[in-house]
Amino acid sequence: MNLSRHFPESHIALAHGNGGRLMRELIESLFAHHLKNDLLDTAVDAACLPITTGAGDIMMTTDGFTVEPLEFPGGNIGSLAVHGTINDLAVSGAIPLYLTLNAFIEEGLEVALLDRVLESMAQACRESNVSVVAGDTKVLRRGQGGGIYFATTGIGIRPSHLKLGMQQIRPGDAILLSGSVGDHGTAVLLAREQFGLSGELNSDSASVLPICQALTELAGLRFMRDPTRGGLATVAHEMANATQASVRLIETQIPVLDPVRMVCEILGYDPMYLASEGRVVAVIDPATSDTAIEKLHALGYTDAAIIGHVEVGRAQVILQTEIGGERILQELEDDPLPRIC
Amino acid sequence: MNLSRHFPESHIALAHGNGGRLMRELIESLFAHHLKNDLLDTAVDAACLPITTGAGDIMMTTDGFTVEPLEFPGGNIGSLAVHGTINDLAVSGAIPLYLTLNAFIEEGLEVALLDRVLESMAQACRESNVSVVAGDTKVLRRGQGGGIYFATTGIGIRPSHLKLGMQQIRPGDAILLSGSVGDHGTAVLLAREQFGLSGELNSDSASVLPICQALTELAGLRFMRDPTRGGLATVAHEMANATQASVRLIETQIPVLDPVRMVCEILGYDPMYLASEGRVVAVIDPATSDTAIEKLHALGYTDAAIIGHVEVGRAQVILQTEIGGERILQELEDDPLPRIC
Repeated sequence: MNLSRHFPESHIALAHGNGGRLMRELIESLFAHHLKNDLLDTAVDAACLPITTGAGDIMMTTDGFTVEPLEFPGGNIGSLAVHGTINDLAVSGAIPLYLTLNAFIEEGLEVALLDRVLESMAQACRESNVSVVAGDTKVLRRGQGGGIYFATTGIGIRPSHLKLGMQQIRPGDAILLSGSVGDHGTAVLLAREQFGLSGELNSDSASVLPICQALTELAGLRFMRDPTRGGLATVAHEMANATQASVRLIETQIPVLDPVRMVCEILGYDPMYLASEGRVVAVIDPATSDTAIEKLHALGYTDAAIIGHVEVGRAQVILQTEIGGERILQELEDDPLPRIC
Repeated sequence: MNLSRHFPESHIALAHGNGGRLMRELIESLFAHHLKNDLLDTAVDAACLPITTGAGDIMMTTDGFTVEPLEFPGGNIGSLAVHGTINDLAVSGAIPLYLTLNAFIEEGLEVALLDRVLESMAQACRESNVSVVAGDTKVLRRGQGGGIYFATTGIGIRPSHLKLGMQQIRPGDAILLSGSVGDHGTAVLLAREQFGLSGELNSDSASVLPICQALTELAGLRFMRDPTRGGLATVAHEMANATQASVRLIETQIPVLDPVRMVCEILGYDPMYLASEGRVVAVIDPATSDTAIEKLHALGYTDAAIIGHVEVGRAQVILQTEIGGERILQELEDDPLPRIC
């Protein structure tokens, strides 16, 4: 982790929240610079707390939610706020157990909307067997909020024997993706009236716990992450940077739904950078990859596929294109879609 | 806890965030209604997680921070966000250990201001020996935020033998206050340019851990709470409602600093309802009250005083006034000061 104070901008820009290079610089140069300690690692999804229990390691994570609109096909900010945080625990190998909830509500919000959002949140909690154990609400003056912002913090337990992390990745390892990319980003995009588009696409917002639990049973599992802000390309970049190896992705193997492809072509987005909220990228021993795919297909994740591998080479992300060429996927710079999650 | 769906308003108002009756109704009728479970108790400062450790009970709490202005005499939103959450753990009898941080930053925020705020946050963490172990940042479009909103979630360990809670309170118990009321609310008020006032008053924002640790050593301690939103009057109301007894406060015993008194007189506020961010209200066995006050004075909390007691009677808060009369302190209705914490 680079803790240098390289931060050339004098004011915060939208791109500082996009999951890409500028966000990484904001976190490293300001947040991690001041708050650094032995337990804070900005490159992991959840922290392991040094509290001894009989059950395993206590893992803790937090996430903020600002999605606009608050309701979208396939979910709303309530279900998203549960899925987002339990997914960070799940990809760490933990079983999510307890959540806390912060609500920042804008004056003038329709109570019926808040009611629907909380109902979805409760439903998502029940489905994943987690409980909200504490909360706090603040009301913001009209024009100082976005309807609702949520923050959820989660606690889970991870078996102590589980050794997952980017440091486990080796050249030759296979990269698995549990389903199509960019559904969430595109569904939210379409739900924004100003685009004048509508479609039948649903967000993929869901708990990835069943996927992660199936994969952690495999001996060859190295690492898991959910490709949210910044999408698959950003997770691939994080892996390339951490391992100082090349990440090669095979375009024809990466599932992209037709509506996502179409919207991206029309509006000039790249699905490789769009957020998913119910997918897992996993790195596994190639000897285990067939078994992994079979397990996920059997669980109903029929689009799960091996989409590439890690190879010796400089730290970069190579996309092997449909027509046989190669394209370097750059680290995300501009913010394609603010308030996507 | 009343989980009925009494919620007459169709839209959220500022007063739903003020710590008083409307906020209680919002939390009970919407949040607790949907999210109820055995661990969620909206009347406590921190939840006890059913994870067995050798060290004690794991306590968890969360708090959101929206104070305006972001910097005020005696602190800023960074130090406040640390103090607020560790204080909720401290009054539960726990030693705070780990925090997570959510930052919602508005596009256009000056980076130098963010830097100062994070520096104060780090300083507050060091002073209380807590670590930020995970975080998340979101950037909000210009006009959809208030500069910075923070949420901090805290984990602490409480000795398993400690039995604190409003259910421990009995008629005859003494009510202790660790220092003057309303300093934070008034300091923030004065820092808002539009009032055209300025003063030498500092916020009392601080960790109350030393106070709480001193008091937990006493056998007769029943309950502690920090009087933040809604002030001393709101804590007194919570106690009266929970115990179905009268809470009698003696006005002459309640420390109010001169500038606080003056500002309240000019602007028509009641210091009993103004927020403190570094004070503790404690209920103790009257046999222990002298010892408690001596301990706090010795620690430098020279304004600590016994300010009243709990007595048999209907559930209400009685203020015995300076001139010998009695005044009933009503539950807070309107929001006196939005974005005070």
